[in-house]
Order: sequence, then C-alpha cells, then structure tokens
Amino acid sequence: MTDRPALLIMQRHLAPLTSFLEGTYNVYRFWEGPPLEAEHDIRALVVAGEFPLDKHLIESLPNLQLIACFTSGYDGIDVDWCRARGLPVTHAPGVNHEDVADHAIGLVLAARRRIVAGDQALRAGGWTADSKLITPSLKDQRLGVVGLGAIGEAVARRAEALRMKVRWWGPRQKDAAWPRAATLEALARDSDILVVASRADEANRGLISREVIEALGPAGLLVNVARGQLVDEAALIAALRDGRLGQAALDVFEDEPTDAARWADVPNTVLTPHTGGATTEAVQGMLMLLLQNLEAAFAGQPLKTPVPGD
Amino acid sequence: MTDRPALLIMQRHLAPLTSFLEGTYNVYRFWEGPPLEAEHDIRALVVAGEFPLDKHLIESLPNLQLIACFTSGYDGIDVDWCRARGLPVTHAPGVNHEDVADHAIGLVLAARRRIVAGDQALRAGGWTADSKLITPSLKDQRLGVVGLGAIGEAVARRAEALRMKVRWWGPRQKDAAWPRAATLEALARDSDILVVASRADEANRGLISREVIEALGPAGLLVNVARGQLVDEAALIAALRDGRLGQAALDVFEDEPTDAARWADVPNTVLTPHTGGATTEAVQGMLMLLLQNLEAAFAGQPLKTPVPGD
Repeated sequence: MTDRPALLIMQRHLAPLTSFLEGTYNVYRFWEGPPLEAEHDIRALVVAGEFPLDKHLIESLPNLQLIACFTSGYDGIDVDWCRARGLPVTHAPGVNHEDVADHAIGLVLAARRRIVAGDQALRAGGWTADSKLITPSLKDQRLGVVGLGAIGEAVARRAEALRMKVRWWGPRQKDAAWPRAATLEALARDSDILVVASRADEANRGLISREVIEALGPAGLLVNVARGQLVDEAALIAALRDGRLGQAALDVFEDEPTDAARWADVPNTVLTPHTGGATTEAVQGMLMLLLQNLEAAFAGQPLKTPVPGD
Repeated sequence: MTDRPALLIMQRHLAPLTSFLEGTYNVYRFWEGPPLEAEHDIRALVVAGEFPLDKHLIESLPNLQLIACFTSGYDGIDVDWCRARGLPVTHAPGVNHEDVADHAIGLVLAARRRIVAGDQALRAGGWTADSKLITPSLKDQRLGVVGLGAIGEAVARRAEALRMKVRWWGPRQKDAAWPRAATLEALARDSDILVVASRADEANRGLISREVIEALGPAGLLVNVARGQLVDEAALIAALRDGRLGQAALDVFEDEPTDAARWADVPNTVLTPHTGGATTEAVQGMLMLLLQNLEAAFAGQPLKTPVPGD
C-alpha cells in the first residue's frame, strides 16, 4: 500500500470524477480492466447506487474500507451484507430531490401537454392550417404520488401549484398535507397521473405491477423518476401497446442505458436518460459529499453521510 | 335574410366549431370559397384572434353585427376601426391563462432539463454506458416575465414553486409580488430565462428585439407563449445560430403554422404548435362564451365578454 489511498471507480459514466479525485488518491477505473495488481491497494469503491455491486469483487479486495456511493439511491448495494463485513456505505442524500421533482413535473407536462409530440409533429411538417392539437388541462387532474419521501413531497408541492389534486400511498402512514390512499391499487384507480417516487429495494421490486398499471388505465399517465426496477417494465410495455395504459413518461429503466430498440414501437411515451437528479448543482453537491466521506473514512473520522441504519 | 342568422367561420382550424353552431345558425366557412350569395345573410364572423382580419371582407358584409373572437387574444383585429363602424368585438378572456402558464413552465423544463433533447438522444441510441447528460438545476434561476397580466402572474407563481427567482417588466407599473425591472433590456440582462407573456398589439410588435435577445445572452433561454409578432424572429434565429442566445422554446410564431424548414438547422430550440391555451377544458370554456356572445348579439342583449374599451 502506498501513502495515497487507491480508489476504484465502478461505472464508466462516473469517469469525470477522476479529475477531482486523482489529486489526492490513486484512481483505478473498473472498465479499464480488473485491477489485479492493485487489489491490495484499493481502499474504497466509488459507485453509482442504481447498479448492482458485485460481491465477489468486494471479497477480492482485502483492504477495502468504504463503499462510497456517489448517488442518493443505493439500491444496487447489499448494505446489510456490507455491514456484516464491517464495510460502511455512504451516499449523497438531500442533494437532488428537488431537481428530481422538477424533472417529474417536466415529464408530466411533456406528456400531458404533448410538448415532445408537438415538437416532433411541427418539425415533421405536421402543423397545418386545418390542424389544431388539443391537449388536456392539468387543472384538477388527480396526481397520485407513490412514496412520499423527499422526492414525493417535492412532487406533491409542485403538483398543487399546477392546480392538480394530490393523494399518495406508501407502505407506512405518516403525517402529510395530502390524503393517503388505502392501497396502491386504490391510488392508481383514483389517479389520472401516477408518479413513482419510492426508494427502491428488493422488497418493492415490480411494485408497479400489471394490476396497478391497469388500475391507472387507458387515460392514465405513469411517470417514473425513482428506479426502473419498481415497475414491471414488460407489463408496462404490453399495456401501452394494447391501450390499457394511456401514457408513460420514464426517466429510469429496468436496464440502464435502456435499449432504444425496446421502445421503438411503444406508443405514447416520453423517455429521458436518467437525468432527473443529474443537474450541475446536484452533481457538485454529490461530489462534495463524496470527497468528505472519503476523507473521513481514511482519517478514521465519523462518516459525513452514511446510509441510514436499520 | 333568413330566420336563422348566418355566421362565417374564418380559419380552417376552427372548423370543429361548426357542429356546435349549425343547430342554431347557418354556418359558412371562409376557406370553402367566398360566400358571395350569402353576403347579405352573414351577421357574425367567428375568428381566431391571432390572424389578421381582412377589412375588405368586413366592408363587403352589410349586415354584420359582431366580430366573435373565439380566443382570448384579438391582436389580428383592428378593434378601433370596428368600433368606429359600430361593430362590436367579443373574445374569451379568463379561460385559458392558467393553461398557457402551465405550458410556459413545461417549455422551461423541456428546454432547461433537456427533456425533448434527451428523448431524441435516447431513441437515437445516444445513451451509452459512458455518457451522462447533465442539465442545469432550475433552483435560483432568474426568470423574467415580460408582461405581468393574467398569464404572466400565473407563470410567476409557478416559477416560485420551482424555486426560481422572479422579476418582471411591463410598460405600466402595477402592484405585484415581484420586483419590476427598470427596462426590458435590464430584465433580459438580469435573467437566465425570459418568458414573453404580453398582450400583443401594433405598438409592441418586435418588442423582443435583437438587443433584448443579446442582453439575455449565450446562456439565456427565451420562452414565448404570447404571440409570435412580439419577437423579432429573424433576429432570434440569427442569435441562436451564432450562439448569442442559448436556447428558445416557442409556442407561437411570426407566421402560423410556421414552416418546419425555417427551423431545421436552428439549434437549441423546443417548438410546439401553438398549443399553450388549447386545452380541452379551455376550448369548452371558449365555446361557451362564443355561444353566449352570439346569442346576446342577436337578441339585442348586452354582450357577455366584449373586448375591453379604451
């Protein structure tokens, strides 16, 4: 081991972090090949929390001290398993939930007010003197929030400013300004728009099932800004094809990057490449927390933002 | 003249009104040919206010009693000239300003958070494992409202809910919750996003000039949900091409429908086909006012919603 701790960055899209880290650390990049010669040096993994983290890799790194998750979500990481090995996990909470909520509202408007479809039609010469695209008003649309955490609450506040009627459902009752539906299916049945904002874990994989999708129905819009695994994506695609669901606006997917071909003939979709929380300002905040957690871990200080305990 | 008053609908995209009108009125449609044989019958014109209304046509209809503008805006109509001929003009105020404001916010989000561009990139296979689209947060962006009428105020309220900082400019001082800039150029210079929400008339044609566009600058976003004539469109296109303006998101155009070819190589634009106020609910409200104004005019009753007097 050298004086400079070594880090291993796991995902290619995190490569730009290198320049902020290499002043202090030796930085390895997983996609450049397994760092066999460095396995004793590596003391932290830098990861994006939505990707499954390989336990065999962790076991092969004897001096690992920290899983430093760059993102807020850490659903790809088996935190209990890490803890049992004495391996702490940090993440970046409270940095980008408002930006994610902005993006959710942007997706609602893009889908309902046909902003993406209108842009495409105009550019294709589809706007003619005898055509007029009429879209539904957002006023009094019933917006159901699935998961009333920081993102869900921020979505609910914005939806009210846009004159929508907000309800929510989550597995736990909590004090909230909006009524909680008895069940997720009841929320879907009584909503025009369903926004998925839950924290993902193994227990809620496929939460937005075929039944929930059908309860939302032929006029309904499903928005997902949380995690792709929360939605049964095959059921979603089938329902959009059959008209059992009206529209979907998705920022997250079962596999990321999602395959463009998978969506080529799926109607009534707005699709963005997981940009909800990836703002310049949020990325700066996440970088700050990453640097503070790494510094604390190697100094033996309390971690700045460990993932919550059980 | 027959017992049933005759109406002449001027614009093709208003053709769907026919079915609501022909139960009570004889309906002529301008684009089906000049109604020479009906010129003595026609007692009202039904028009969309953004299109120039031909004075020669008005002069050729000796029994005309009303210009019934289906829309809220009536900038295509020379109201003073009509009044001087004893010809009242009605319109549909207060029906769709909140929907237009929703659309303005949708355009801000679509442009700033790259929702249209992200959708296009994803579908074109541009989302790869080593790419990550980073967009600016809306937080603390300075949004300048041009024209603080009903639409402008509704935009300002929504912008605050999205954590933006609101200022405005309009030709007249008024009580408002937000500070007024000294001049339009000062507002543009101190804004990241400029939303045009003014009522259009001959006096403010080209209000958003080359100078205003350059004051908004290379990082700025211009949003127009009011009328195309308020913006010097040639100057706008040139500034987008040169990078003197960052982005434009437009629902209205100098000529409508705008020619798709005009925008083919203009970068950083989101374009929608004048759908801001055209929601199902707003169209119903406009139809209701149209029917009430027609009925009042032919019954000699006070008009429901005449355009404001001088």
